[in-house]
Amino acid sequence: MQTFTELNMPVRLLMGPGPSEIPPRVLRAMATPLVGHLDPEFLTLMDEIKSLLQSVFRTKNEMTLAISATGSAGMEACFVNLLEPGDEVLIGVNGVFGGRMVDVAQRAGAKVHRVDAPWGKIIEPSQIAEALKKCKPKVVAVVHAETSTGVRQPLEEIGKLSHDAGALFLVDAVTSLGGIDVRVDDWRIDAIYSGTQKCLSCPPGLSPVSFSPSALEVIKNRKTKCQSWYLDVSMLGTYWGTERVYHHTAPITMLYALRESLRLVVEEGMENRFARHQGNHELLREGLESLGCKFLVDPQYRLPELNTVFVPPGVDEAQVRKRLLDEYSIEIGGGLGDLKGKIWRIGLMGASSTPNHVNALLGALSAIL
Amino acid sequence: MQTFTELNMPVRLLMGPGPSEIPPRVLRAMATPLVGHLDPEFLTLMDEIKSLLQSVFRTKNEMTLAISATGSAGMEACFVNLLEPGDEVLIGVNGVFGGRMVDVAQRAGAKVHRVDAPWGKIIEPSQIAEALKKCKPKVVAVVHAETSTGVRQPLEEIGKLSHDAGALFLVDAVTSLGGIDVRVDDWRIDAIYSGTQKCLSCPPGLSPVSFSPSALEVIKNRKTKCQSWYLDVSMLGTYWGTERVYHHTAPITMLYALRESLRLVVEEGMENRFARHQGNHELLREGLESLGCKFLVDPQYRLPELNTVFVPPGVDEAQVRKRLLDEYSIEIGGGLGDLKGKIWRIGLMGASSTPNHVNALLGALSAIL
Repeated sequence: MQTFTELNMPVRLLMGPGPSEIPPRVLRAMATPLVGHLDPEFLTLMDEIKSLLQSVFRTKNEMTLAISATGSAGMEACFVNLLEPGDEVLIGVNGVFGGRMVDVAQRAGAKVHRVDAPWGKIIEPSQIAEALKKCKPKVVAVVHAETSTGVRQPLEEIGKLSHDAGALFLVDAVTSLGGIDVRVDDWRIDAIYSGTQKCLSCPPGLSPVSFSPSALEVIKNRKTKCQSWYLDVSMLGTYWGTERVYHHTAPITMLYALRESLRLVVEEGMENRFARHQGNHELLREGLESLGCKFLVDPQYRLPELNTVFVPPGVDEAQVRKRLLDEYSIEIGGGLGDLKGKIWRIGLMGASSTPNHVNALLGALSAIL
Repeated sequence: MQTFTELNMPVRLLMGPGPSEIPPRVLRAMATPLVGHLDPEFLTLMDEIKSLLQSVFRTKNEMTLAISATGSAGMEACFVNLLEPGDEVLIGVNGVFGGRMVDVAQRAGAKVHRVDAPWGKIIEPSQIAEALKKCKPKVVAVVHAETSTGVRQPLEEIGKLSHDAGALFLVDAVTSLGGIDVRVDDWRIDAIYSGTQKCLSCPPGLSPVSFSPSALEVIKNRKTKCQSWYLDVSMLGTYWGTERVYHHTAPITMLYALRESLRLVVEEGMENRFARHQGNHELLREGLESLGCKFLVDPQYRLPELNTVFVPPGVDEAQVRKRLLDEYSIEIGGGLGDLKGKIWRIGLMGASSTPNHVNALLGALSAIL
């Protein structure tokens, strides 16, 4: 029988596309002994998390909670609750996660219309407007922060177009929440999902979601049951709501962690947090440009928390990442899809967004290049 | 704006139907800083977890991994991967979790045949044999350890009947794994799921699963895509396998915890662990019987890790549980469904299975009753 030694993981500077580093207070929260998931003290904690998520999402939506699985399950929860077989959906695809939306929606039996933009570009609102002349979708979906490309998608205009066309507006905020502004109510987003392991600096394992009253009305009027029992929002709502109807067992430790990470966001202040992300992005940008790295994304659409730059000509990008990991214990990400081998993805998310991270990476990169 | 104080959870003796208490080594493992989920060191850790799960499931199944969500998602993963719309499935229902299987299978578009037994009784193999004369299911599914009733379902004979009828054999081992023997290969189980928060004494958030080569063959030959992107075993297999194709972001901290909890299981030794669960069950049984509590389940089918006893006549069961929690910080469970108000469910799972837990509860109960 194979033997297994004590857990002995290296200490990394996490500057990839996620996970980000975890603040000590969040790590400590996870070492807290459990209470039961129906313990009155735990129900209070769920209420607190709901309230904290409402603050961070900037929403009054009652149906705001954390799905007990990672961000991709949050995506699936949004689609399978809003869509029934045969429903039409319009999806903007300009990276991996828009593509994933298409796959998820098709598995829900929906008829998918897609609007494509080159990876590294935004979906233009005019493209959505054009598409809405040719179909009448129940839902329009876009990715706010494309983790595969580093593009920040403007949302307000697409939201307005969607509502004018009688559609619900669905947004992927996995890599935006806690790093750049996400305004669910102001931007009239009907369904939104995020992840914990990006700008919230909490380990992966939960997906914060929020549904507007309009979205809930659609869910209430479904003709068929939601195809997923685990992700059925109507049941999750009675577990997280005042009824406390047992559904599944919530991942208690992860919720301890999420509460602490949200508390840190609120303590820092949202505006301060966004300014920090922006400032460290600018520091990194200057340094990378002086090393000859060009950005993939136009300045006005760059995500400060996820910097995508072309690998300088003649450089073996995988070798550089390997040396960063082996010699400096720094993780950055490579490109996906067509961008594989062509770009690096450098995350400055949550606790990983500090000048020290930036300077450490720039020092290591300039030594290697 | 509401303020949120430091996390300050009470210390409980967890003797309900799960979660169980978490050993200090597992709690400490969760305070470990993260590495990336595609870090070479993390891939090694995933391999180790697979190997440890194979030991604990007593299987050589290559497709053995942890679903990145709780036990109910493991249930859903088994059903939605094996079943396609229109497929027939035979499900044994003698408690909440058999009933949940029916709901999950129906949401997958399957035609469900059910065999019912009273809550607290086993599904008799003769019932399955009889049902198999009238239908030709693709899958036969039963619950090994019914958390709602405390019944241990014998599996071997039903497994044989299923295979003889050309069906795959699917088992819920949420509350059995790590507490009583589960022999995937010897009992020819084709698909099995468990949870981490019961006899493995790891926090909730992951679902260990295993699929036999026959099950994988069925999955490979599906005509339709699995309806769940998140739970699609063919994609999870390439993430957990040597290909390491990015799927979702694994819940890194939870996997640190699972590795440590499995290491504790292996260090203790499976047989020793089962004997410990049995011994503490007997200690509890003697004490409860001397307090006038009668067991719901016949002796030969009792789960040592989940003891279900009738509330003595004239006792307000909810009040007793409230006093146990408020005055002794002990959690036990109440009944579900028709058994609500009639039984207590007392868990002695994993780290919660000690003579000290038993004696503490018996002392508290005799003071209250």
